[in-house]
Amino acid sequence: MDIYPQISPLLSEIERIMEGDMGKEDQRIYGMLAPFIKRGGKRIRPALCMLSCGACGGEHRAAVDISAIIELFHNFTLIHDDIEDDAQFRRGEPALHVSHGTAMALNSGDALYTLLWRKLVCFDIPPTKLRKMQKMCAEAFKRVVDGQGIEISWIKEGRFDIGEDDYLAMIDGKTSALMGLSCEVGAFMAGAKAPLRSAMRDYGELLGAAFQIHDDVLNVTGDFSKYQKEIGGDITEGKRTLMVVHCLNNAPEPERKELIAILSSHTREKASIERAIVLLGKHGSIDYARSRAASLVSKARQKLSRLSDSADKASLDAIARYVIGRER
Amino acid sequence: MDIYPQISPLLSEIERIMEGDMGKEDQRIYGMLAPFIKRGGKRIRPALCMLSCGACGGEHRAAVDISAIIELFHNFTLIHDDIEDDAQFRRGEPALHVSHGTAMALNSGDALYTLLWRKLVCFDIPPTKLRKMQKMCAEAFKRVVDGQGIEISWIKEGRFDIGEDDYLAMIDGKTSALMGLSCEVGAFMAGAKAPLRSAMRDYGELLGAAFQIHDDVLNVTGDFSKYQKEIGGDITEGKRTLMVVHCLNNAPEPERKELIAILSSHTREKASIERAIVLLGKHGSIDYARSRAASLVSKARQKLSRLSDSADKASLDAIARYVIGRER
Repeated sequence: MDIYPQISPLLSEIERIMEGDMGKEDQRIYGMLAPFIKRGGKRIRPALCMLSCGACGGEHRAAVDISAIIELFHNFTLIHDDIEDDAQFRRGEPALHVSHGTAMALNSGDALYTLLWRKLVCFDIPPTKLRKMQKMCAEAFKRVVDGQGIEISWIKEGRFDIGEDDYLAMIDGKTSALMGLSCEVGAFMAGAKAPLRSAMRDYGELLGAAFQIHDDVLNVTGDFSKYQKEIGGDITEGKRTLMVVHCLNNAPEPERKELIAILSSHTREKASIERAIVLLGKHGSIDYARSRAASLVSKARQKLSRLSDSADKASLDAIARYVIGRER
Repeated sequence: MDIYPQISPLLSEIERIMEGDMGKEDQRIYGMLAPFIKRGGKRIRPALCMLSCGACGGEHRAAVDISAIIELFHNFTLIHDDIEDDAQFRRGEPALHVSHGTAMALNSGDALYTLLWRKLVCFDIPPTKLRKMQKMCAEAFKRVVDGQGIEISWIKEGRFDIGEDDYLAMIDGKTSALMGLSCEVGAFMAGAKAPLRSAMRDYGELLGAAFQIHDDVLNVTGDFSKYQKEIGGDITEGKRTLMVVHCLNNAPEPERKELIAILSSHTREKASIERAIVLLGKHGSIDYARSRAASLVSKARQKLSRLSDSADKASLDAIARYVIGRER
């Protein structure tokens, strides 16, 4: 993305930090992590963190180290989530448990998580400030892990009585918490006061919800060459997306049952996956999800009104628009 | 065990703390953790922590909260290790991924790990002291996870060129690090100076190594009703124990090959497992492991000489003897 050229040198620095972290460790365990992290991804969380810091009057550089920690946490969750969901692809390549086996991928995820906590307790800022930041991180990390747990518990228990509020509460943890943290911590490093920090967190969380809903849409409508995950993978995994929730609430009984049967079967069969997508389209569920994501983005952009005008504010606004416009 | 009656009320308090921690959270995720933790286990780490605190002149109570955190970390590792090793039993009942599926067990492990870090960053002690303790924990946790990673990497890569030093380096992480931490942190909470803290850590680490070697011995010689894990499970999992390392270095080529074949097959067939155990016995590998454990325990006990005499010191000495005498 070229919507935040002002931080691209620092984004490269974050890449080097993460690579360096892995390079110092036992390669039997950490060796698979550097190439995994290097696969890229959007680095949207470090960008949000540094831009939030800048937009609140801080130096981007002040948020570099914590941005790296947040991005490492994000990568940790991807590794474990892919095991839990038995997802096959990540960023266009085999998921880590597919290429290295579940045992090694699970352990490397734990190693990554432990390493980032070690970085977080060794952080070089005044103790009171550090403690506040550690608490913010611990709270957000917990919401992320719990959100993922709720989603897989629905699948494991065969639950289809999920309402829109349940779905929104789940992604509030799984996706919003970390984007909210990125923005809040960025503001915190800039020395922003509580009301501004809270507005920035709200912006990040609303953005995160929109991001997740759009991601779910891409999963059924996207192009593998761009999206870099298997199209329809969420159908195979039986995910209760906003589209699924909407469709189950709006389709007549026979089609409702048909969708439930496909989602429960964990099929990789193309015809079944396509049929599920047809049902989502037919009942307006894809359009509904798109419109919900757009409305969340509007709300997110409003949260930026507390900020004085700046290039960083403009970039945050552009990210909000990008989140629902992206193809991957 | 009745070798430390002086701390048994506090051990019960730790049980209540851990149960309370889980009870406050979303039961879809944390609901399986309370009964898992309640299955018991030996609580040797909290005991070591509180006794070390007492033996260094502190109040046992000062080490209660950190003991609970260490025990929670231990339980977290058990859940993930059992997935990685595909171990079937834990404390006489099905492993958590066997009863709840890999996805939920993995996520609950992450939830537990996150929750204990949240406790650790909210700890109510002076900031400088807290920071030191957090660093000790992060270092030890990292060694534990890395040690487990090395062990499973050997299995995954089919490595049998493991020397005794490799084995000892691996258990130095997997098992010793956390027992060393328990003792060191106990001493730290008592306000002990660096040389005493370091002696206590050494005691704990030597004990940990003896504990692991004895555990490996029990795994092939024990009685399920007492040991509460599947006997010979380590053979099925292909573990490179000290006995295996010794046997591979001492058996003639045909028997060496036979042992390697059994360990590589991941068989649950009784005859093969028994044959492997016969080979370990025949080449003196079980006796060798027992004698190495005994020698580590002697060294551990010597480390206690820095302490003035007390009931707590006597209990630490008794634990050292217990570690290689126990049947589970």
